[in-house]
Amino acid sequence: MRLQDELVKLAKGAQAACAPMREATAAVKNKALCSMSEEILRRKAVILKANLKDLAAARRRSLSPALIDRLILDGGRVRAMADCLREVAGLADPVGEVVKEIRRPNGLLIKKVRVPIGVIAIIYESRPNVAADCIGLCFKSGNSVILRGGSEAMHSSLAITRILQGVIRHNRLPAGLINIVATPRRQAVDILLKLDDYIDLVIPRGGEGLIRKVESLSRIPVIKHYKGVCHTYVDEWADLNMAQKICFNAKVQRPGVCNAMESMLVHRKAAARFLPGMLREFKAAGVKVRGCPLTYRISRGAVLMARDKDYYTEYLGLALSVKVVDNVDAAIRHINLYGTHHSDTIVSENGGNVARFLRGVDSACVYANASTRFTDGNQFGMGAEIGISTGKLHARGPMGLEELTTYKYLIYGNGQVRE
Amino acid sequence: MRLQDELVKLAKGAQAACAPMREATAAVKNKALCSMSEEILRRKAVILKANLKDLAAARRRSLSPALIDRLILDGGRVRAMADCLREVAGLADPVGEVVKEIRRPNGLLIKKVRVPIGVIAIIYESRPNVAADCIGLCFKSGNSVILRGGSEAMHSSLAITRILQGVIRHNRLPAGLINIVATPRRQAVDILLKLDDYIDLVIPRGGEGLIRKVESLSRIPVIKHYKGVCHTYVDEWADLNMAQKICFNAKVQRPGVCNAMESMLVHRKAAARFLPGMLREFKAAGVKVRGCPLTYRISRGAVLMARDKDYYTEYLGLALSVKVVDNVDAAIRHINLYGTHHSDTIVSENGGNVARFLRGVDSACVYANASTRFTDGNQFGMGAEIGISTGKLHARGPMGLEELTTYKYLIYGNGQVRE
Repeated sequence: MRLQDELVKLAKGAQAACAPMREATAAVKNKALCSMSEEILRRKAVILKANLKDLAAARRRSLSPALIDRLILDGGRVRAMADCLREVAGLADPVGEVVKEIRRPNGLLIKKVRVPIGVIAIIYESRPNVAADCIGLCFKSGNSVILRGGSEAMHSSLAITRILQGVIRHNRLPAGLINIVATPRRQAVDILLKLDDYIDLVIPRGGEGLIRKVESLSRIPVIKHYKGVCHTYVDEWADLNMAQKICFNAKVQRPGVCNAMESMLVHRKAAARFLPGMLREFKAAGVKVRGCPLTYRISRGAVLMARDKDYYTEYLGLALSVKVVDNVDAAIRHINLYGTHHSDTIVSENGGNVARFLRGVDSACVYANASTRFTDGNQFGMGAEIGISTGKLHARGPMGLEELTTYKYLIYGNGQVRE
Repeated sequence: MRLQDELVKLAKGAQAACAPMREATAAVKNKALCSMSEEILRRKAVILKANLKDLAAARRRSLSPALIDRLILDGGRVRAMADCLREVAGLADPVGEVVKEIRRPNGLLIKKVRVPIGVIAIIYESRPNVAADCIGLCFKSGNSVILRGGSEAMHSSLAITRILQGVIRHNRLPAGLINIVATPRRQAVDILLKLDDYIDLVIPRGGEGLIRKVESLSRIPVIKHYKGVCHTYVDEWADLNMAQKICFNAKVQRPGVCNAMESMLVHRKAAARFLPGMLREFKAAGVKVRGCPLTYRISRGAVLMARDKDYYTEYLGLALSVKVVDNVDAAIRHINLYGTHHSDTIVSENGGNVARFLRGVDSACVYANASTRFTDGNQFGMGAEIGISTGKLHARGPMGLEELTTYKYLIYGNGQVRE
């Protein structure tokens, strides 16, 4: 069969599986999710064996240590997958929730009700655990999923998916709910992204290149989980002790993630008091700072000079851009221009400036007096997340189960016709 | 200046205008909307004169009477535009509404707040009044708008837009809020659809060809207001008098709109009792019916035989497909396969069948015992609408002011850092 036909068949199967899922109760779904969790643990050896094949191939192809690290599965990571599936079983089922109820003067009762989206394609790179997490979240929210993982993780992704497909079969649920595109052929993604008759949503999970590619090729709506160039703005009226703790946490606690701080802005009047101690602390932690001319002067040349492009950079490591700004408005303008609309925070005891910042910064998550590191489904109380949307349509910020649903209107009448 | 550069400049201006609008109060916006309404009436002569130019050109180009009808503005239509702007002024401002509030154990207070989307491009065809309606709705919801109307309505669209731009200037609001792409060059749309750095959302308003074109070219998220192949299913347990009233209303009251019925499904056991009277009534109203073989037999050959493609057809006129089905499940399958996920209704006194239908039909608006003609922002109590979304992402069904917003999270802390 031609690849095009194969993928159309797979996508049609995924779409057909949606109909019975519109009827599935939370109890049925949770039972299957608990079995999935158990099977992942019970068949750990199979998963690790598949992973060894991927690792051997990766070493043969001399992939980078960072990439190999993302690829590795061990006992802990397998347990984390199983835990995630069990956690998803414990989350409230969003499907069927009545979001709004409207009674009209003509007697019509209109209910706005959450329903599954339909078929969701996830295109991801090297982390094979993405397969289990995404299958769990899509299944619980009543959606069919089509996975397309990176070729370097294909044995691991396949092993995980086959195990969870087995649970679906064993629970007499439709096989089309869980799909993986295993062909090594690169056109598979290009073809998938044109199947807008069958696939409702594409979520790319990976680096900038992948996201840009998916966005430019897709006829299907895409929700981007794009990079985070997150800022902390230390206001003139900041509690500088608090500011130091927040900045240090946002940069250093886990620098490789999208909600870590990449750029620190400091009010001109706070710079001389705040920067020397803060820069010493960063230096001690091994953070490489690139600063504006004033930061450079205050540090007595102990930082690198920042180029304009540094302010656009997501370092994902122990590096940071620093800039002194004139006031809260300058900070807001800088963030809206250089940032990625992800997570930004102000440290200030001045209520007016805080309100101005919260209103003016056009990001998914805007904080006052807290670390940007809290942008996370779990930290927001939604449980596991499928990612953090940096787009504005449909979902913004952490995407949990609710964000994997859409809604429909149910309208109850007793014979109403339009005049 | 090259067209590309011109359009980038225009889109940048639209984006820049968003910042002050994040601060604009409802009072400021409503005052401007009321002025817009007044100015439209006061400068009616200018609008009608521009419209005459469009009409003369249309007649020279021998455009179809239907197209010319959509193009015509008269006193009544100008008043309707003014009324719409005044009505939008009276609607609640969605911006700033707190949708959800979460207090976390660590003391963080998380507020999910409605905010404007940003820059919205509206690509429409011949109805020039779309310009005024869209400007009003986008402005009230705090968004900048870029209009691209059909060339046949360009004089009218321009006249309307210039008048409303004048009101914006007079109210010292940013000029970039209201934009129109007036060049006759066709590439303008292709270029606009690639400006995803500046434009947040595209809404095509027009026929299938336009929507397909926009969807396939756009790098910007698109919300489709696609055709409505709407169904009425008359169940075995229907009150047949009610069914007759609902079917007649859904087909005949205004056949040229997307929420009119295009296909009627009848339970096998109700067919012999229901169809003869219903078909007579349709015949008297001039409705041309294309029926399945059983419908044909019951009508004693008084209807045309339906071909499969008829069931996919949006007639937008006095024509109807009719099919006898075995049960509610067959009706659901037919609707999900042939329909456009717009509006569908069941007529039945059987609660089980009603529940099955409401759950099983995958459409934006699913009715029980009421006409599909109620799918409309006004009828749903949201006031004016920008259209009826047939997509599943972001907005589904009637799109009012709320659907022209997104949200952001505001997180209030007192020094919280991540452990």
